[in-house]
Amino acid sequence: MTCEIRDILEKAGALMLSFQDPKVSSKGEHASYVTDADVAVQAFLEEELTKRFPGVLFLAEEQENTTLTDAPTFIIDPIDGTTNYFRRRSASVISVGLVENQVPAFGAIYDPYRNDLYHARRGHGAWLDDERVHVSDVPFDRALIELGSGPYYEDLMALTGRTVGELLPIVADIRRSGSAALDLTNVALGKSEGLFEWMLQPWDYCAGALLVEEAGGRYGAIMGGAPSFDHGTPFMAANARIFDRLQAELQRIRELCM
Amino acid sequence: MTCEIRDILEKAGALMLSFQDPKVSSKGEHASYVTDADVAVQAFLEEELTKRFPGVLFLAEEQENTTLTDAPTFIIDPIDGTTNYFRRRSASVISVGLVENQVPAFGAIYDPYRNDLYHARRGHGAWLDDERVHVSDVPFDRALIELGSGPYYEDLMALTGRTVGELLPIVADIRRSGSAALDLTNVALGKSEGLFEWMLQPWDYCAGALLVEEAGGRYGAIMGGAPSFDHGTPFMAANARIFDRLQAELQRIRELCM
Repeated sequence: MTCEIRDILEKAGALMLSFQDPKVSSKGEHASYVTDADVAVQAFLEEELTKRFPGVLFLAEEQENTTLTDAPTFIIDPIDGTTNYFRRRSASVISVGLVENQVPAFGAIYDPYRNDLYHARRGHGAWLDDERVHVSDVPFDRALIELGSGPYYEDLMALTGRTVGELLPIVADIRRSGSAALDLTNVALGKSEGLFEWMLQPWDYCAGALLVEEAGGRYGAIMGGAPSFDHGTPFMAANARIFDRLQAELQRIRELCM
Repeated sequence: MTCEIRDILEKAGALMLSFQDPKVSSKGEHASYVTDADVAVQAFLEEELTKRFPGVLFLAEEQENTTLTDAPTFIIDPIDGTTNYFRRRSASVISVGLVENQVPAFGAIYDPYRNDLYHARRGHGAWLDDERVHVSDVPFDRALIELGSGPYYEDLMALTGRTVGELLPIVADIRRSGSAALDLTNVALGKSEGLFEWMLQPWDYCAGALLVEEAGGRYGAIMGGAPSFDHGTPFMAANARIFDRLQAELQRIRELCM
């Protein structure tokens, strides 16, 4: 499957980078944007994936979605990091996850700026191109934590700020790239120890969650249990050493803000 | 001057990337690290710059510093983004500023991962290699704000978190790369609108401040006036359109936390 996906993603990446001056539209919520490139890349992915994997369903960022069933379903973000994309920050990726029986079976994240393909199949490890990758073993007090700022949800902004203030004294530092899928590749490669966002959508984390898990890490809903792959979740992922501690701290911080 | 600096910085960058496994030491404060690569790159820069510009003084991150005089003085950060460097995040730069009469006369920031040289001489514009660069004209409510998290100063962490929570509803979003000098290149190129950090050192901002100014933006101390090039300052830089508003908001947020 990986070779077929690589071919499709490389073409989708070329399409993404071919837009000289992407047209940006607001999606209504604060800081929520879509470009004509997002729409074109999604249409390309759905067409190509349908040709190669006929009958597979789709959930994707730039469409109206129905409820996730147990049937094989691609969960797609055509451009994760849309703001980075139209600000020319070279920090956006294409994320394609495949969910079967409501859990990820395959995930691929393609970085068209670096021609890097991150991929994982359940039970077969996490990979950057042909190289197997692993999460770090860095402990909590030296951890770099990637942060989603949930800029679309005004009611979560104070909580996000408080979380930054509470985490800074007890971890090494925070990072905020603007692409959760890219952040999850960093966790899987051991370039950071964890990612959280107080509200994240399945197309942002579906592929990356499996990548982290197959790299030896864990993912989940911040308040406990498995995240939905059907609707938005307060989501986290981390190396195995810090997952429980990060989850407990995030739960504690949320209590402070209630 | 730029050709001589480019030659020195390219060699310094090659030295920086030549460390296969940098030795990391704590500098005592929280999350404050130095590696043997920082020390080696600084020694190389001081030696080479002294050869080409004899008599020029130095202020630098990895040395004991004396008071800045009116004499020409190089202000150097051998590796800005040390944590990124030893975590292999490809987001660290070498920053060399030249201050005369206590204000920046020349600044160069070199990104060895991309072979990008950002440079500015007072009155002669800001440049990426041979291309002139300019700040954006994006307004405050669509601004991307780069954030230094001041991870070394425990008393500023709650303020930093509060600032994130207060800014998120009124700007587009925040970013946190872990290298203030790299953030300032983004502001100068119009890939973001501003940077702030509640305590930043002159070697982090000396070259980048001039770069932003020569790209049509502004910099200053958050509480008003010019920043010191002699000791740490609550520092900000922004495009000309949002500078006053960002400064007023940061001052307001600081009041909230007093």
